Amino acid sequence: MKLDDSSLQKFGFIKRETLGSINIDPLQTGGRLTEAAKQALVEWGDGYSVCDFCGGVLDQIKKPPIYDFVHKALPEFLDCDEARVTNGARESKFAVMHSIGKPGDWIVLDGLAHYSSYVAAERAGLNIKTVPHSGSPDYYLDPEGYATAIEEVTKESGKPPALALVTYPDGNYGNLPDARKIASVCHQYDVPLLLNGAYAVGRMPVSAKEIGADFIAGSGHKSMAASGPIGVLGVSEEYAPIVLRKSKHNKVKEVEFLGCTARGATVMTLIASFPDVVKRVRNWDQEVENARWFSARLEEMGFIQRGQKPHSHDLMFFEAPRFYEISEKVKKGRYFLYKDLKARNIHGIKSGLTKYFKLSTFGLGREKLEVVADSFEDILKKYEDI
Amino acid sequence: MKLDDSSLQKFGFIKRETLGSINIDPLQTGGRLTEAAKQALVEWGDGYSVCDFCGGVLDQIKKPPIYDFVHKALPEFLDCDEARVTNGARESKFAVMHSIGKPGDWIVLDGLAHYSSYVAAERAGLNIKTVPHSGSPDYYLDPEGYATAIEEVTKESGKPPALALVTYPDGNYGNLPDARKIASVCHQYDVPLLLNGAYAVGRMPVSAKEIGADFIAGSGHKSMAASGPIGVLGVSEEYAPIVLRKSKHNKVKEVEFLGCTARGATVMTLIASFPDVVKRVRNWDQEVENARWFSARLEEMGFIQRGQKPHSHDLMFFEAPRFYEISEKVKKGRYFLYKDLKARNIHGIKSGLTKYFKLSTFGLGREKLEVVADSFEDILKKYEDI
Repeated sequence: MKLDDSSLQKFGFIKRETLGSINIDPLQTGGRLTEAAKQALVEWGDGYSVCDFCGGVLDQIKKPPIYDFVHKALPEFLDCDEARVTNGARESKFAVMHSIGKPGDWIVLDGLAHYSSYVAAERAGLNIKTVPHSGSPDYYLDPEGYATAIEEVTKESGKPPALALVTYPDGNYGNLPDARKIASVCHQYDVPLLLNGAYAVGRMPVSAKEIGADFIAGSGHKSMAASGPIGVLGVSEEYAPIVLRKSKHNKVKEVEFLGCTARGATVMTLIASFPDVVKRVRNWDQEVENARWFSARLEEMGFIQRGQKPHSHDLMFFEAPRFYEISEKVKKGRYFLYKDLKARNIHGIKSGLTKYFKLSTFGLGREKLEVVADSFEDILKKYEDI
Repeated sequence: MKLDDSSLQKFGFIKRETLGSINIDPLQTGGRLTEAAKQALVEWGDGYSVCDFCGGVLDQIKKPPIYDFVHKALPEFLDCDEARVTNGARESKFAVMHSIGKPGDWIVLDGLAHYSSYVAAERAGLNIKTVPHSGSPDYYLDPEGYATAIEEVTKESGKPPALALVTYPDGNYGNLPDARKIASVCHQYDVPLLLNGAYAVGRMPVSAKEIGADFIAGSGHKSMAASGPIGVLGVSEEYAPIVLRKSKHNKVKEVEFLGCTARGATVMTLIASFPDVVKRVRNWDQEVENARWFSARLEEMGFIQRGQKPHSHDLMFFEAPRFYEISEKVKKGRYFLYKDLKARNIHGIKSGLTKYFKLSTFGLGREKLEVVADSFEDILKKYEDI
């Protein structure tokens, strides 16, 4: 591409078409900015803005209060000994895997783990053993599966895995496994546990200590109303000297974070939204009630919710045999649902999906959820003769 | 910290005190947002906004035009075969080091390398050999030093280093080494070269191919008028299959980027500013002229510019013996300079520094630079009897 005036016109400011839609994409519902975060974005948008008063370490900056946020508020929020901000939940996971494991070591992942857990383990050179789930319709994860997996690794490789990970909840079915039991099983074998809470931290109450997780990863842009990419990482006292080790070349810089991570507006939006995020987490029971209400409405229409039932998270997976039937007959084929929802100002079910899809009810409130449920009903009616 | 209403008041929206100052911090001058980028921030601020139309890979998103930007515009701009967006220049460097080197291998760094190059090499498990510079006053880097360092590593470890890196320019003196010669020296030993262009890409013309660099790292928040953290990485055809290798667990995801990197507003601000960045790079001669003019004005006042002379970059290092003398006598001590500049609405020389400091003239224009130079003169006059 020649960079002339004509080709450069493609870039510059670009409008976001989905702005103003009811967005039920699980990636989006927990990442919508608060008003305070929108203000912070503009105020702190410039490149390295937070470094104006930096003495050399991001999380030691006193003004703005990044130090208080990272070293006082975050450990309390995650209920862990030490916390850091990272470039995202996947970067948090990689930092743990890369420091706790050595190339050739093994890691145990739950069968519902996010792809980024696999990729992070692969980048760290770790071999992967998965704990199977029970498959459709529940996708249940038996904590005892971790014992089996750990024993298999020990038998095959001569030593236990370096680390185990559980996804809490997973990003497909929104299932909340018994993480406390899993931690206890892992600890019987002296295997530390990393809790991937990308869909938990910032949405629902979660305590690393109550669960017994040695590490906890969260996502700012997925679930903490922050502008991405930004994540959080909690570490227990026991493993902090390894994961948070400092450079031998620069005594104040932490190796796994390459010195500094969220060095810009991202951390300021996380801080801006934090008071609201703390408050919304206290309101989690209402979110679960909304999710269950929505699930019940869809099931009345003939949809089938897969995964845990009754459901305990806003992220849900549905099977929609009737939508699939329609897609096989209508002119627009499998794109009909996306288009019919778009016409109703609803976004977030991936274009082309009809038979199976996931969605999230988080933060939408009963009124908007009624609009969504009514729209599903309308669409079914529209095609009832097909 | 108990997360009650009183402690949470510390967070939320926080004002940026330095907004509106003339900021001469080298970290800030190239990262100031354009108007288009400010608009993009607000439009795309929500968490995972760019993923609204994602089919699974960030750099394949067609709408917004991330695909065209990453695969067509960026390779042209960097003059390299393949390009990616990353979470920052240091993350670009780590991705290269981690994929090209194996733990225990060696890397050759220039003696003026940024701390993050050391930390990235350490994180990748690489041993470091540095190429010495000539010290004060020039800090000259002899390209032949790379030959010596490579031969030393080969002698000591039995094989050549996995990689060499040169900082172009360095972040202390703003020196531009003869990168083309360095590339040629490295290639004589079949050692690939990574150009750290965090202070070059987006400020001045730089071509990976003309230099002969196998890899080029740039920083969005440092030098491309983007909201951070975001960086760019250019890779040659020869090394692309290694650095950009895909996951064996998820065939579309690239391992070194953990699947996706700048998954939010950061990439949209980079794209928003890109047309202006392309244009400002064409205006580099004027920037160099401004830097030289500023340097000359300060030298007339008795300051001494260290590093290359005549200087060819906006980042400059000054020795200020007179400021140091003053600091030893005035009540405010070494904080006098910071405070006197603040009173004149100038920010960016680190609080407490007087004898040596660095600054940047980039993008300020002659008028603001005159204000800064006049302020230095005023401050000298203010204390002339001390």
